[in-house]
Amino acid sequence: MAIPVETFHLAPRAQGTLQARIQQMVAQGILSGRFRRGEKLPSTRALARHLGVSRITVTLAYTELLANDYLTSRGRSGYYVSENAPASPRFEAPAPRVETVDWDSVLARRYAGGPAFDMGRPPDWASYRFPFIYGQTDPSLFDHANWRLCAMQALGTKNFNALTQDQFDADDPELVRFIAHHTLPRRGILARPDEILITMGAQNALWLAVQLLTVKRAVAVEDPCYPALRQLLAQAGSRVAPVAVDDHGLRPEAVPDETRVIFTTPSHQCPTSATLPLARREALLARAAALGAVVVEDDYEFEMAYLDAPAPALKSLDEDGRVIYVGSFSKSLFPGLRLGYLVGSPPFIREARALRASVLRHPPGHIQRTAAQFLSLGHYDALVRRIGRALAARRAVMEAAVARHGLEVAGKGAHGGSSLWMRAPDAVDTQALAFALRSQSVLIEPGSPFFAGPEVPRQFYRLGYSSIPSDRIAEGIARIAAAL
Amino acid sequence: MAIPVETFHLAPRAQGTLQARIQQMVAQGILSGRFRRGEKLPSTRALARHLGVSRITVTLAYTELLANDYLTSRGRSGYYVSENAPASPRFEAPAPRVETVDWDSVLARRYAGGPAFDMGRPPDWASYRFPFIYGQTDPSLFDHANWRLCAMQALGTKNFNALTQDQFDADDPELVRFIAHHTLPRRGILARPDEILITMGAQNALWLAVQLLTVKRAVAVEDPCYPALRQLLAQAGSRVAPVAVDDHGLRPEAVPDETRVIFTTPSHQCPTSATLPLARREALLARAAALGAVVVEDDYEFEMAYLDAPAPALKSLDEDGRVIYVGSFSKSLFPGLRLGYLVGSPPFIREARALRASVLRHPPGHIQRTAAQFLSLGHYDALVRRIGRALAARRAVMEAAVARHGLEVAGKGAHGGSSLWMRAPDAVDTQALAFALRSQSVLIEPGSPFFAGPEVPRQFYRLGYSSIPSDRIAEGIARIAAAL
Repeated sequence: MAIPVETFHLAPRAQGTLQARIQQMVAQGILSGRFRRGEKLPSTRALARHLGVSRITVTLAYTELLANDYLTSRGRSGYYVSENAPASPRFEAPAPRVETVDWDSVLARRYAGGPAFDMGRPPDWASYRFPFIYGQTDPSLFDHANWRLCAMQALGTKNFNALTQDQFDADDPELVRFIAHHTLPRRGILARPDEILITMGAQNALWLAVQLLTVKRAVAVEDPCYPALRQLLAQAGSRVAPVAVDDHGLRPEAVPDETRVIFTTPSHQCPTSATLPLARREALLARAAALGAVVVEDDYEFEMAYLDAPAPALKSLDEDGRVIYVGSFSKSLFPGLRLGYLVGSPPFIREARALRASVLRHPPGHIQRTAAQFLSLGHYDALVRRIGRALAARRAVMEAAVARHGLEVAGKGAHGGSSLWMRAPDAVDTQALAFALRSQSVLIEPGSPFFAGPEVPRQFYRLGYSSIPSDRIAEGIARIAAAL
Repeated sequence: MAIPVETFHLAPRAQGTLQARIQQMVAQGILSGRFRRGEKLPSTRALARHLGVSRITVTLAYTELLANDYLTSRGRSGYYVSENAPASPRFEAPAPRVETVDWDSVLARRYAGGPAFDMGRPPDWASYRFPFIYGQTDPSLFDHANWRLCAMQALGTKNFNALTQDQFDADDPELVRFIAHHTLPRRGILARPDEILITMGAQNALWLAVQLLTVKRAVAVEDPCYPALRQLLAQAGSRVAPVAVDDHGLRPEAVPDETRVIFTTPSHQCPTSATLPLARREALLARAAALGAVVVEDDYEFEMAYLDAPAPALKSLDEDGRVIYVGSFSKSLFPGLRLGYLVGSPPFIREARALRASVLRHPPGHIQRTAAQFLSLGHYDALVRRIGRALAARRAVMEAAVARHGLEVAGKGAHGGSSLWMRAPDAVDTQALAFALRSQSVLIEPGSPFFAGPEVPRQFYRLGYSSIPSDRIAEGIARIAAAL
């Protein structure tokens, strides 16, 4: 590989002759490991022209570097970093300087280092033998071949020219149409294109809803709930009222009077897996209407209903346009895809689109088009069925193993899903349990981060089965039972 | 295509017999155009099971629909939407309901419908013959074949398994390494991985910087400047002081005393194309240090330096870690890619990473890996050279045409770029000019949106040449001259 001439810059106002400065510049590139042994240097002519110095100056500098064994020359073909050069094994930029900027006062807002919630999923989770974690897909179930074909198609010249342009704040009409015609009707929802916004996954959809609806407002969330939602609300300065769920999910009458926004997971309560019954759904919509509040419905994992037809979404009962619906392809395709969607009344979607445009313009066109192809060719439905069969089989193994060891299931979801919500004996702290199990290559998710606090129950835990092969489940559960 | 059984939902608490409700549900699907002629319905057995009703009820409903010519039956193969069914030509969800929600009071923040700035680029700009617009790449210059190969490679099973997992807040290490080793050194910048964050394009990088640094703070921006930056600052509630630029860019001594953050485009001032001289760069850093301020350097379009080697970035002179650097691949690859990066001190990058994780987790892994492959195989450098040659040729044609018609160039950039900053006679309002030229298939960008106001000069305009073929430039300039 040749070292491009553009990487050479003479430091302004530096000491020394031009020749010495050029020598030093090349030597530092080699010493730092940035230029590697065998790499070709720019010709003396090219470097002289680039730096605006005479060619003889560069030639003299190179000659000196040859003599010191930093460079070798190969006849007429030019100058190369010597194989004997004192190179460090890999490039390291200079160590961070001592900070002279007072970042504590420069930063107007802080996001990092908030109260950490340990979801029991270390970055190297894939190296554990018994990963009862949640939310990662099993790559062995994915339809790589057809996804690649769809990606190729979306990169074909015709599609490509359309997708490479800046779309300002628009989405791929093919993806929006598929969601409107096929995905949403399965949830009982009929929506027009101006009621749909593509987002960077469900996380981005929730973030947009939180920014637009909740800043400094009174908000009701389920307790327990998805911890990242509470974090988003805290960042927005919302006044959060946790509303305890029971075995049937949220109790509408427990939503406080001053509530302006209600966040809920009616189909499959996160993390208890409870399904909100029809009567409560109607009561929740009536309660929201009476309060003048809106409802944000996170319909996560709805495709994973392999045991029984799921109830239609809460949004399907919404005649006022009061429900904002969050969907995602991350659970069923793959989390790294970052593709989800918001459905809501046009005034809300208009604002969400404008905010999204400020933050990031739009999700990449190529990814939207690839997903649209994969969906419309039926590969997605086939994938969902395949994942459903695998999860159904694993769930049967999970339930048998859990029953054999007498572990208590606190919630498992009527329709399917990919996790069991578990309750350990009251004296057990599942944070400590999760930590102890890691040394046995077992990962479980402690339940306490789902609760609002300040006093949180410590005995719950979640066992995900989307990433653990069936034949390891029994042994993994046995290890958990032994640790308990 | 078969209509999936999951799209059938009986409305709860509806009137009428079960059979009548099933008939109505099917008929409405057909009447709305959602079910198309020739599509196959679920079998009576499957639908009965899905709805939890007896099979005879479904059979009776289907029989009635057969009699009414909504459905046909094809022997044992099942029921289909009749070719004679009274279908509407395409699916339309119900028209938006009358809004019962008072969105004005529900929305805590507003983003849409702010002061619009017309950048002279209608959504259908590609259908204009003479599009002197800015910021879109010319797809005919792009290396589709190698981009596709890299995308395939990034979708190979080995890469794919790594990229489909949720990366939490991490970036693709291969892309970060390439930026650190190859891209940034060309700008004179040496940075470590913890000083680099991948963003969803430069827009996302600027948004993150604005959120972290400027909320309710005193900020200096160049006047004129990129209008979307002023919009982001207004959304953040920053106190913005516009600092007039001259032919050499920002004047450091004009930065007000209370300034906490300075936004600048030193290599290629947006939109005047001025280059900030070394003495001013040093003075700007000294001024920032004296104020305890930080500097955000937007190094947009730096690859488009085809005439002369660009000066190293301001960031290369920064020994305090006071400069935050914004780069992008959107100008040189394609805008729809949405890939850029922030470079800054670790405390800043840590916060930016945490905020990005809240908003969207991370840019899609597949796109990061595809770009990393394209860059590291040298395709990117080849592309930049090819674009540079095309822009150099077009620029020569532009300058000749502009000179022939006696149009005044107010700024053109010493290193290259993709636009000329133009000045019309003082009496001309270039908004009106741009509007009038559209009827002649000519697009130009009025200059007034770049200025801070309230009183803005109306006689400037920008002529981009990244999207107009060389052989149309002369005619397009002639039309502008005639209109003037």
